[in-house]
Amino acid sequence: MSQTILRPPAMGAVRIDDVFWSPRMASVRTGTVGVFYERCREAGMIDHIDPDIKDKPRRQLAGIHGMSAQRFWDSDLGKLIEMAGHVLLLAPDPALEAKIDAIVDKFGRMQQPDGYLNSWFIYQEPGKRWTNLRDDHELYCAGHLIEGAIAYWRATGKRALLDIVCRYADLIAATFGTGPGQKRGYCGHPEIELALVELYHATGEKRYFELARYFIDERGRQPHYYDAEARARGADPAAWHFGSYEYCQAHKPVREQDKVVGHAVRAMYLYSGMADIAAETGDAALAAACARLWADLVGKRLYVTGGMGPSAANEGFTADYDLPNRTAYAETCAAVGLVFWASRMLGLAPDRRYGDLMELALYNGALSGLSRDGTLFFYDNPLESRGDHHRWKWHRCPCCPPNIGRLVASLGRYVYGAADDRVAVHLFVGGEARLAVAGTEVRITQRTRYPWEGSVSITIDPERPVEFELAVRMPGWSPNASVSLNGRKLLRGDMVIDGGYARLRRRWSKRDRVELDLPMAVERLRAHPDVAEDAGRVALKRGPLIYCLESVDNETPVHRLLLDARAPIAANYDAALLGGMVRLEAGASAESEAGWNGSLYRTGPSGQSPATLRAIPYFAWDNRAPGAMEVWVRSG
Amino acid sequence: MSQTILRPPAMGAVRIDDVFWSPRMASVRTGTVGVFYERCREAGMIDHIDPDIKDKPRRQLAGIHGMSAQRFWDSDLGKLIEMAGHVLLLAPDPALEAKIDAIVDKFGRMQQPDGYLNSWFIYQEPGKRWTNLRDDHELYCAGHLIEGAIAYWRATGKRALLDIVCRYADLIAATFGTGPGQKRGYCGHPEIELALVELYHATGEKRYFELARYFIDERGRQPHYYDAEARARGADPAAWHFGSYEYCQAHKPVREQDKVVGHAVRAMYLYSGMADIAAETGDAALAAACARLWADLVGKRLYVTGGMGPSAANEGFTADYDLPNRTAYAETCAAVGLVFWASRMLGLAPDRRYGDLMELALYNGALSGLSRDGTLFFYDNPLESRGDHHRWKWHRCPCCPPNIGRLVASLGRYVYGAADDRVAVHLFVGGEARLAVAGTEVRITQRTRYPWEGSVSITIDPERPVEFELAVRMPGWSPNASVSLNGRKLLRGDMVIDGGYARLRRRWSKRDRVELDLPMAVERLRAHPDVAEDAGRVALKRGPLIYCLESVDNETPVHRLLLDARAPIAANYDAALLGGMVRLEAGASAESEAGWNGSLYRTGPSGQSPATLRAIPYFAWDNRAPGAMEVWVRSG
Repeated sequence: MSQTILRPPAMGAVRIDDVFWSPRMASVRTGTVGVFYERCREAGMIDHIDPDIKDKPRRQLAGIHGMSAQRFWDSDLGKLIEMAGHVLLLAPDPALEAKIDAIVDKFGRMQQPDGYLNSWFIYQEPGKRWTNLRDDHELYCAGHLIEGAIAYWRATGKRALLDIVCRYADLIAATFGTGPGQKRGYCGHPEIELALVELYHATGEKRYFELARYFIDERGRQPHYYDAEARARGADPAAWHFGSYEYCQAHKPVREQDKVVGHAVRAMYLYSGMADIAAETGDAALAAACARLWADLVGKRLYVTGGMGPSAANEGFTADYDLPNRTAYAETCAAVGLVFWASRMLGLAPDRRYGDLMELALYNGALSGLSRDGTLFFYDNPLESRGDHHRWKWHRCPCCPPNIGRLVASLGRYVYGAADDRVAVHLFVGGEARLAVAGTEVRITQRTRYPWEGSVSITIDPERPVEFELAVRMPGWSPNASVSLNGRKLLRGDMVIDGGYARLRRRWSKRDRVELDLPMAVERLRAHPDVAEDAGRVALKRGPLIYCLESVDNETPVHRLLLDARAPIAANYDAALLGGMVRLEAGASAESEAGWNGSLYRTGPSGQSPATLRAIPYFAWDNRAPGAMEVWVRSG
Repeated sequence: MSQTILRPPAMGAVRIDDVFWSPRMASVRTGTVGVFYERCREAGMIDHIDPDIKDKPRRQLAGIHGMSAQRFWDSDLGKLIEMAGHVLLLAPDPALEAKIDAIVDKFGRMQQPDGYLNSWFIYQEPGKRWTNLRDDHELYCAGHLIEGAIAYWRATGKRALLDIVCRYADLIAATFGTGPGQKRGYCGHPEIELALVELYHATGEKRYFELARYFIDERGRQPHYYDAEARARGADPAAWHFGSYEYCQAHKPVREQDKVVGHAVRAMYLYSGMADIAAETGDAALAAACARLWADLVGKRLYVTGGMGPSAANEGFTADYDLPNRTAYAETCAAVGLVFWASRMLGLAPDRRYGDLMELALYNGALSGLSRDGTLFFYDNPLESRGDHHRWKWHRCPCCPPNIGRLVASLGRYVYGAADDRVAVHLFVGGEARLAVAGTEVRITQRTRYPWEGSVSITIDPERPVEFELAVRMPGWSPNASVSLNGRKLLRGDMVIDGGYARLRRRWSKRDRVELDLPMAVERLRAHPDVAEDAGRVALKRGPLIYCLESVDNETPVHRLLLDARAPIAANYDAALLGGMVRLEAGASAESEAGWNGSLYRTGPSGQSPATLRAIPYFAWDNRAPGAMEVWVRSG
């Protein structure tokens, strides 16, 4: 059977050389991975998995911020290892590799004879393994270790951790399932599902795929596993802090789910796993559930930045159209998770609905989580700040730094998708990819100044002439986009545009060149009238980038600015701005405090005076002088 | 020396008979006081002070909601007793009186030989009294017991509790002060200061006044008492959860304070005590501090409802102009506290700055805390809700029900102020007062349908003709207000208007009649341009009442409504609406979801269709079908 699934390129198959992304990947390589390792070490995470440490209670290992050991710590090490693997594929770093080897060594010695591998239940609560899947992140930790093991093996060829996690996965497969004596459980925090699909691809062992499918299929069934599990612990299932199993998307079987609910990161990881299984199996009911959930998210519950999950209380979703800006939680990991989900939805077919959103989340709500130098982070990504929201060095739950780090460092995997006789170009990122298509190695080279400019040159260099379909995303935000082939502009009749991708099927030869021209008008986006916070406001967007107003660029307090609906907005590249980016500038008016004379309320409106509005890309905010920020600007 | 301070009428000197307030006082009498007693009892508060209960740990007394005993429980009993006292002045209630007598009996038997009286430190942490004034509410509890004792004594003539609290106050006076061996402490939660001033008035014992003055004078001095106190406990002063002593307004001496900061209720109670002392002593520096703090509050930190304190984190103030609507904390107790503070600022002189705000907080941000039947409560009073904010039966910290209850039940005390040769009419409330002015008993009778209508008739009946000044507030919201005397309209030249009060000095005889006509136009209030949340919006106000849009009255979701800046707004009395009130209605437009087709963002604005906007008084919301609510409506 031919492979129709669009799979990401193999790790290392894409070399990025890009005006926008190369510096950001460098900041992860020189900044994020090192500071994250150091902070994990300071926090006591590495000691926590060390079998040689026996002399003090592990609960008090934490070295910084008085943080005590956490059940999810192994996952942070898994993500550290994964990020390190991706980074090592960018450039050798023997010192980093030695650090990771030392961690792998500890995991190896910590592993129990039966393959079990979780530091919390080995050292903190021995004898309690598999007793609270709902809350304890046990299989979630396993998933991140699996992803880390695969990335580190791909980068270094070292199989030690891969062998360790395979033994662990085999224990998990023996423990969970529908067979006699097996537990019918699944993790409260999805993650292992998508990791097992990757492990299947890495090892070719179908049993890992079957285990992933079991976890997906079992989720949310009645009688409910979490009820039984709680009772077995002597706990009252009804006394759960989060109330409804919606929190972990286990309120009903996944094929019946139609609303994105609960903890946003859990949702994104679960839906990613569902999309993986749907793509691999052709399961129409599962694919339909994914499509329904997608429509619900993008139609009612997504910030314009691609962030999601407005509430800190459940780190997740609330009600339709409930998208407050200033208090938006919009966790970095959730937007990263949307990139994961979208990339897997693209496995089914090239479809702009998914490609556009993957790009939106990547360039805005996810990337905002990372400072310019890669060493400071946002956990929550509000769309408005009065000047009191800033990037931090460390967080009690340090999940976001390695999540955005591993995404950026492995970006090449999201740029393309390859099937047997099709290559899709999902993102516009300079560099070179080597893909196997129709049994032939094809080199694809992109040259572009995207996202600052909208022209993209794609050169196709197959080893030998070969027929396949090149599917190039035509972003929805560029209705006047055009495509040229070898210097000749293609008219609509010359190509098929399907699902928002230009589908170019031909026999490709060396140096064939496809050029895209994506005019980047500045858009004023409006929100649905039920998004109360955005009423009377516009968000500025150019290309894939959402813009924001930051105090440091504006003489007028940003909340006082009013943008006329017809005012022209200039977009100019400023080489001196944060390494070079396109700024927006427009004539505006500003509410004046003249005549208020110390009063707070009065019957007459404020006067207005002319002002200039200046905006920068949202992802780049809070990299300069601290101050207020606003995405949705009032519009006259 | 003649008394120039405008003091409230003696308890019981004003009998309210008012279209607006009588039903509300009845709801406190028949609803609030009974349910509050019952819930205190269920919670275990009464057992907690019972010396006979020895057989189970008091920490687990709580009978409802799994609530454990709280350090501040004695204060809730104090407020219950105070509310009961005021209610007993409205009508006899032997059953209620018996319940309070039983509580008083327990307090009497709980009191220690040296006079000490705090159930937490007698039963829960014996030996730890006076070791953490900053956090433990110890003197705060004493203050509320004092206020309760005074009200109960005034209502019933029973001195038992008054004698108990006097002994306790004597112990406190011996313990705290600047003398040798005395502690130079003061309470983290102000309250005892204003209570001691009342105790001085009740008993004539100047030493209670001096103790109040000591607490005011000592607050915030360096070296800081709370630092020393923490070190004495072996605690690190810098490790305090709330960080800065601004939280309890002890960051600097009170005469140097110029910003309203920290916990809002503490602030209001402190400033009330400061105003009391300033009025009694003529302390200009203290009066100036009060005036500065007042200007800061009303100029930068007050909701349009008279609520304040936007943040749940500190239950208090944040930054200038930070007045979010949906997440407003705006605790009922804080607005009640503003009524207390304003009434004390009026002690210095009749001044509309204070009278108008007292009325605003009373009719809006305070009264909103009480349901129509007096049995359900708001703790926080947001100015916007998506339908998820509702009145509750009970709260972990049940401070609000007795606070709004005691205020409403004792409303007469806020209507008038009396000095030796002056009577001020601060509020327009039907009923009859008997005041001693210039050595003569004067009966003052108000007749009005205020706040629904703006005409007020005030009849003056002195025992015998007597000269004094009648100062009648001319509300700032009614610029065309007029005053008539015995049927003759007074022109500006016929009377002095000073500080916004019409000052009528004459020899008053029986049946002299002053009539006010206060035209009540519907105002569209705008907020200062730095209140970002209110930009482009108006709040509707008629007379003293702020209005709001509630789902139950509007076919259109309230957040979609847009009120044209020039649209006429009709105000009509609706006898069927919640016992009768004036509704507002206006033609408006509504953003339409036509053409959105499931999308959340797009470049074109929404269409608009005609709609009707209907508003009711803010205080009355959430008394019918639950739904969304909005005070600040978008204005075209």
